[in-house]
Amino acid sequence: MAAFYAIQFHENRLVLLDQRKLPVTTAYFECKTLAEVIFAIKDMVVRGAPAIGATAAYGMYIGALELGDELDLQKLYDVKAILDASRPTAVNLMWATSRIMEKIASIHSSSVNEILKVIKSEADAIFNEDAASCKAMAVFGNTLVDQNDQILTHCNTGALATVAYGTALGVIREAHETGKSIHVFADETRPRLQGARLTAWELVTEGIPATLIPDNAAASLIRDGKINKIFVGADRIARNGDTANKIGTFMLSVIAKRYNVPFYVVAPSTTFDLDIKSGEAIEIELRDAREVTHVGEEQVAPNGIHVYNPAFDVTPNEFITAIVTEKGILYPPFTQSILDKLIEE
Amino acid sequence: MAAFYAIQFHENRLVLLDQRKLPVTTAYFECKTLAEVIFAIKDMVVRGAPAIGATAAYGMYIGALELGDELDLQKLYDVKAILDASRPTAVNLMWATSRIMEKIASIHSSSVNEILKVIKSEADAIFNEDAASCKAMAVFGNTLVDQNDQILTHCNTGALATVAYGTALGVIREAHETGKSIHVFADETRPRLQGARLTAWELVTEGIPATLIPDNAAASLIRDGKINKIFVGADRIARNGDTANKIGTFMLSVIAKRYNVPFYVVAPSTTFDLDIKSGEAIEIELRDAREVTHVGEEQVAPNGIHVYNPAFDVTPNEFITAIVTEKGILYPPFTQSILDKLIEE
Repeated sequence: MAAFYAIQFHENRLVLLDQRKLPVTTAYFECKTLAEVIFAIKDMVVRGAPAIGATAAYGMYIGALELGDELDLQKLYDVKAILDASRPTAVNLMWATSRIMEKIASIHSSSVNEILKVIKSEADAIFNEDAASCKAMAVFGNTLVDQNDQILTHCNTGALATVAYGTALGVIREAHETGKSIHVFADETRPRLQGARLTAWELVTEGIPATLIPDNAAASLIRDGKINKIFVGADRIARNGDTANKIGTFMLSVIAKRYNVPFYVVAPSTTFDLDIKSGEAIEIELRDAREVTHVGEEQVAPNGIHVYNPAFDVTPNEFITAIVTEKGILYPPFTQSILDKLIEE
Repeated sequence: MAAFYAIQFHENRLVLLDQRKLPVTTAYFECKTLAEVIFAIKDMVVRGAPAIGATAAYGMYIGALELGDELDLQKLYDVKAILDASRPTAVNLMWATSRIMEKIASIHSSSVNEILKVIKSEADAIFNEDAASCKAMAVFGNTLVDQNDQILTHCNTGALATVAYGTALGVIREAHETGKSIHVFADETRPRLQGARLTAWELVTEGIPATLIPDNAAASLIRDGKINKIFVGADRIARNGDTANKIGTFMLSVIAKRYNVPFYVVAPSTTFDLDIKSGEAIEIELRDAREVTHVGEEQVAPNGIHVYNPAFDVTPNEFITAIVTEKGILYPPFTQSILDKLIEE
């Protein structure tokens, strides 16, 4: 397991690693009330889709506890509505709260104790399933890692984004924990610098040998044989394996292909969107110009400059060596391997 | 010409655009004394090799004026020594001060007035030669630009780095001034953000339509046909055309080649180092980790993380479509065209 927890629930309190204070300060944020959970989601104390899902699930439980004897289905729907509104674009959040409500509806009970028990066990299930999925990806992915590998990763795909372990960074963690001598290069990942702020922090905290680089430095390291494997995460994967991930991923994949360095995507099966045939159907989210023109309070670009700040890019399947999922490793042609492993099983 | 001057000399004062205050404030820094010139070089009021060379040349003149009747060859050598020590790694600085001393030595005069006149006219010559060289590159480069081109550039290669006009950005300026409708994409250029701080400022100031992007966003714009030409500068070019330039340049060249987008280097003949056969002989300067771990006062990476921060990378000649110099445009094979245009002429 990781040397730290982004999310822990014990004695009716949700304890979150306060990601607003990273990478300088390691502090924890305790939620004993629904209001505190809402604040933690809104203010990005917690981030990363699976982590937000688990937080919302325990938020449902904390909200239910607060209702005490007044707890009923209608009041629980109100709790869900408040949680869902705390970050409307987070799909995992609504998925988690809906899953809990469906479970409660299915038991047809009005016993407060029974309802509380069901919520708690469903929240635990959401948490444990993500942890198990990450662990399975890590174990499969680790079969691709050799002694003395020099591994490049992009953005943060670690224990900070999931309930534990992470996806691409989970593979790296597993390789390190199983005694492989590896060195990690972490792209700083402009504009939001998740590689510098979060991945570098995880690597230092875990004692995994690592070097932080500007995104611009990756290409010559790949060419010069200083990097022999690349592991990245994914936001969304099409039916043919085309992969949307943090901006900059596509660039790495082209350089990797040109210099024969394996390029691996690590993502749970829930990341696959089988309704879309190829990456062409994926719309690119544009983010605020301020992420580029400012770093913290410092203005680094002139007033009046137009900015193009896409959140992610799409890597065509031809540049991907394999996709690691919790159900196994998929190889090209992906349309076939996705069908075999993710649909037919 | 540019809508602003990085360097101007009139009425015995050197007026520098204060680059420490960009991109937020446009202010000028006046040097009436040698001490002020030294400060301006040391504190990076002025930057860019040709701009520093011209500043030092006028610094020699201001230093000579201060000596008054005490001016003699020995005292001028002292002035040169102080100037040379103000930024010891700036090759152009020493080149400019040496050129002035050689000129003075060659006239065999001890007349204060005559020596002052020679210094002033040599400093003007250094300034004007750089301006003429930039203009020639701009005119040659502009023959490669078509109506409605969408041009990507990297780092700052503009009027802020030279005495006027610039190299790669000089071509863009010329295209705009000659009425071509172009759109420029400027890489922000981590880690020092010269694209955001300086190039974006020049583009806004000149009214050239432009968009600032994170370096990570360039690859998908190139693939998707949003960029149809790339112009970059150079720090050093080997005899076979291999080009050292700001970190990130090499990555762009690989993506450009893969998607058939012309990739042009713009640099004066003084950038060619004909003593080196290929880019393999170019040693990569490593810079301070703090450029990556901090932006201004903000710490963006954890304590204890190791950082790799190379100043530049080498683009092999196979990825370069042409090199624009003040003597004309060089095409592959570069070993031959460099011989023809730069050595035999």
